[in-house]
Amino acid sequence: MSSHKPIKVALLGCGTVGTEVVRLLTDQAADLTARVGAPVVLTGIAVRRPHKHRDVPAELLTTDAEALIASDVDVIVEVIGGIEPARSLLLAALRSGKSVVTANKALLAEHSADLFEASDASGADLYFEAAVAGAIPLLRPLRESLAGDRITRVMGIVNGTTNFILSGMDSTGASYGETLDEATRLGYAEADPTADVDGFDAASKAAILASLAFHSRVTAADVYREGIASVSAADIAAAKALGRTVKLLAICERVSVGGDDDQTAADGTPITESISVRVHPAMIPKSHPLAGVNGAFNAVFVEADAAGEMMFYGQGAGGAPTASAVLGDLVAVARNRVHSGRGPRESAYAALPVRPMGQTPTRYHISLDVADRAGVLSQVAAVFAEHDVSIAAVRQEGRVDDASLVIVTHAATDAALRSTVDKIGGLPVVREVVSVMRVEGEEL
Amino acid sequence: MSSHKPIKVALLGCGTVGTEVVRLLTDQAADLTARVGAPVVLTGIAVRRPHKHRDVPAELLTTDAEALIASDVDVIVEVIGGIEPARSLLLAALRSGKSVVTANKALLAEHSADLFEASDASGADLYFEAAVAGAIPLLRPLRESLAGDRITRVMGIVNGTTNFILSGMDSTGASYGETLDEATRLGYAEADPTADVDGFDAASKAAILASLAFHSRVTAADVYREGIASVSAADIAAAKALGRTVKLLAICERVSVGGDDDQTAADGTPITESISVRVHPAMIPKSHPLAGVNGAFNAVFVEADAAGEMMFYGQGAGGAPTASAVLGDLVAVARNRVHSGRGPRESAYAALPVRPMGQTPTRYHISLDVADRAGVLSQVAAVFAEHDVSIAAVRQEGRVDDASLVIVTHAATDAALRSTVDKIGGLPVVREVVSVMRVEGEEL
Repeated sequence: MSSHKPIKVALLGCGTVGTEVVRLLTDQAADLTARVGAPVVLTGIAVRRPHKHRDVPAELLTTDAEALIASDVDVIVEVIGGIEPARSLLLAALRSGKSVVTANKALLAEHSADLFEASDASGADLYFEAAVAGAIPLLRPLRESLAGDRITRVMGIVNGTTNFILSGMDSTGASYGETLDEATRLGYAEADPTADVDGFDAASKAAILASLAFHSRVTAADVYREGIASVSAADIAAAKALGRTVKLLAICERVSVGGDDDQTAADGTPITESISVRVHPAMIPKSHPLAGVNGAFNAVFVEADAAGEMMFYGQGAGGAPTASAVLGDLVAVARNRVHSGRGPRESAYAALPVRPMGQTPTRYHISLDVADRAGVLSQVAAVFAEHDVSIAAVRQEGRVDDASLVIVTHAATDAALRSTVDKIGGLPVVREVVSVMRVEGEEL
Repeated sequence: MSSHKPIKVALLGCGTVGTEVVRLLTDQAADLTARVGAPVVLTGIAVRRPHKHRDVPAELLTTDAEALIASDVDVIVEVIGGIEPARSLLLAALRSGKSVVTANKALLAEHSADLFEASDASGADLYFEAAVAGAIPLLRPLRESLAGDRITRVMGIVNGTTNFILSGMDSTGASYGETLDEATRLGYAEADPTADVDGFDAASKAAILASLAFHSRVTAADVYREGIASVSAADIAAAKALGRTVKLLAICERVSVGGDDDQTAADGTPITESISVRVHPAMIPKSHPLAGVNGAFNAVFVEADAAGEMMFYGQGAGGAPTASAVLGDLVAVARNRVHSGRGPRESAYAALPVRPMGQTPTRYHISLDVADRAGVLSQVAAVFAEHDVSIAAVRQEGRVDDASLVIVTHAATDAALRSTVDKIGGLPVVREVVSVMRVEGEEL
C-alpha cells in the first residue's frame, strides 16, 4: 500500500493517556498506515519505573529519554506533563529536527516561545491539540479554519473537575465543600485539587487559546485567575433566581479601547486594541449554549467577525479522548514527514497587549441584605453613580425585618465595580453582601 | 514583514459569498499577509454579467474564466455553485497546478473523485470547508483532528431552511405548508425550495461527510433521501407528546453486519462492515444536543471510538459565515504555497460499501387511531412479531369512541419496519395511521 519508509515514534511518559496512545497505535495500525501513507511504528517508551507498566510491550520501555530522543526516531509524543523534564526533552527533540506532539498545557502556557523558536529553527513540527479541551478539535479550527477571520471572543468551560462541582452545586444546592468531597470520592477531583479548583489548569488553557486566537504571545502569568473555592450556595441560588447558572469560564476577548482610556505602550503611543484573558466563575443565562454543558464535559464558544457564533463540545479529559487528539496530531506530523510538508508555525505578529483585570470591562451581579426602609435604594444607587457604574436592573424584595436588593450592572471596569462593592458593603443600611459575581454571555 | 512573492488569487463567481470574500480579502489584507507569510492579492473575478457587480473593483472583473485560470494565478476560489461550468473550470485549474478552494457541495458530492485525481496528479491543493455547514469548522476536524480515531457516526442538522421550517412547526403547531410560506416570505426559503425541502442539499453534504469520516468514496446518488414535505402537524405533536422533536438529519454511520446477514461483495466474499448514509426527518429526544439547535443554525454531532461524543455548532449558511470558511482554506493553501507544503489528499482506502436503506437498521415511532376494544393491541403486536420487529414501548389512550395507540420499536431493518406499517394500516381495527417517523439519538 505504501513504499515510504516507516515513521518512527517515541513516547515520553506512559500514564493514562500514554497507555491509550499505545493501544490506539496498535489497534489501528493498518488504518494509520493508510492514512499517513507509511507505517507508523512505536520504537520506544520512556518511563521512570518500567516495572510499573505491564500494559505495554516490555521491550519498548526505557528509562533513558535522552537516548530515545537521540535515536533515529521521527516523532516524539510527550505525555509526561509538567515543566521539567518535559521542557528540556522537547527542546532537544525540536532542535534535532524531530517533530513533537504534546498534550502538555502547563509547558505550552509558560514556554511556548522557546518551543516555537526551536521548531522554527529546525523546521520540525510542534502540535498540541490535546493540551486544551481533550478530544474536542479546537486548536486546529482556531489556528487554521478561522485563519481568514477576525476572532473576537473565545469563552469556554475547559476544566471538567470544576464544571462537575458547579453542576453538582447547581442541582443539589449543596455547599462547595460538600460537593468537592463528593467529586473527590467519585474520582472527578484529585486528592490535591488545587490545580483545578483554583483555576490554574484553566488559566494555562486560556493562555494557549488567547495566543492562537489573537496571534499574540500570552503566557499563564498574563492570565487573571480566580477559582471556584469562594463560590457559595448563596451565589448559586442567586444565579438560579435570575434564570442564570454559574460556570468557571476561561475568557479571551478583544477589548476596544474607548476615547477616555489613557493606556499607552512603552514607547508612549496610545494602545488602541488590547485583549483580556481571564479565568473566573461567572453567571451566564440558562439560555446560553454553555449553560447546558454539565458534569465533566467541556465546551468552547467562539465568536468571529465573519463566521459569527460557534460552539465546540465534547469530552475535555480522560485517557481515550486525550489520546484521540494526540493521534490526530501524530497522523498530521507523520503525513508532513511523508509529504515533506509543515504544519502551521507560531503566529504572534499581532502582539496585542493583555489588559490588566482592573481596566477590563465586565459586569457584576450583586445581592445584598438591606434594612427594609425607604431610601436604601437611593443610598446604594448613589455609590454606583459616584463610581460611574451604570445599573442595568434592580430587584427589591421586602421581608418582615429586612429586604433583599439584587443589582445587575452595565459594563464598567473591574476596578470600578470592586470599589463600588467595597463601599456599598460599608453602608450602614447594608446588612450583608450576600453574593457578588461577574455576569457573562449577554449584552446589555 | 515577508519577502515571499505575493500569492495571486482568482475568484470564480461573485454572488453573496463572493462579495464577502472580496471584502474580507481587502479589509484583512495586513492580517492575511502576516498569517500567510506573503501578500494575498486578488487578481481577477470571473462573472457572467460584469455590470451587475458594483460592490467589487471593476478593473478585476472579467467574463473569461478560462483565461483567468490560465493566467499566472496561484489559487482559484470557486463560488459559482452547480456542476457546470464549475467542474470543467476546477479540473482545468487543478490540472495546471493551481490550488483550489471551493464551497461547491453539489460538485464535490458528485465529482470529488475526478477533482481529487486531478489534484493528486499535479500536487495542487483542493480544500472545501465551506461546502458543508458554512462557517462551522467541521471538515478539517473530521479529516485531520480525528485522523487517528475511528469515527462511528456523524449526525447533523446541515440545512438551515428545513431546520427553520421544522423549528417553526414545533413552536407554532402550524402545518408544513403554512410554515414554508412564512419561511419564503422571510427569505429563509428560496422561491423554488426543492433543493432544501426535498433533502437534496443535505444529501450532498451527507455524501461529503461520509467520504471524509469513513475514508470511502460516497456520492450524492448513494445517499438515501427523504425531505420534510410529508412531515405533518400530527407528527410534530406526536413527537412533543413523547418528549421528542422532529429534525431533518443527515446521518452517516458504520453498520456492523450480524451473522444472519447475507450481503456479499461482487467477488462473493461476505461484507463485514458497511456504512449507512441517509437524510430523513427523525424524532430525537429533547435532551439530545441537536434538539436545541433551532432556526437557521446548523450543528453536527460526531461519535468516535476514542474521542467519544462531540458537537460542532454555528451558522451553516450566509455570505459572511461561508466566506469565513473560504478564507480559512485560502490561508491554508496560500501557506502551503509559501512553505512548499501540501494539504491532506483524498483518503478513500477503506472503500466501505453503502448499505441499501431497506437493509439499514433503524427504529420507528408509529401512532395509530384504533377501535377501542379489547384485543386491538394483540392484533397489532402480532403483525410486529410476524415481521420480526421488536416493540420497545407502547402507549394506549382510550377516548369515547376510539383510542390512540403509540408504538416505538427496537431497531429492525427499514424494510421490515415498512412492511410492518403497511400491514398494520390494513388491519380492520386500525382506523388511521396518524404518524410514522424514524427515531434517532437514543439507544434502546
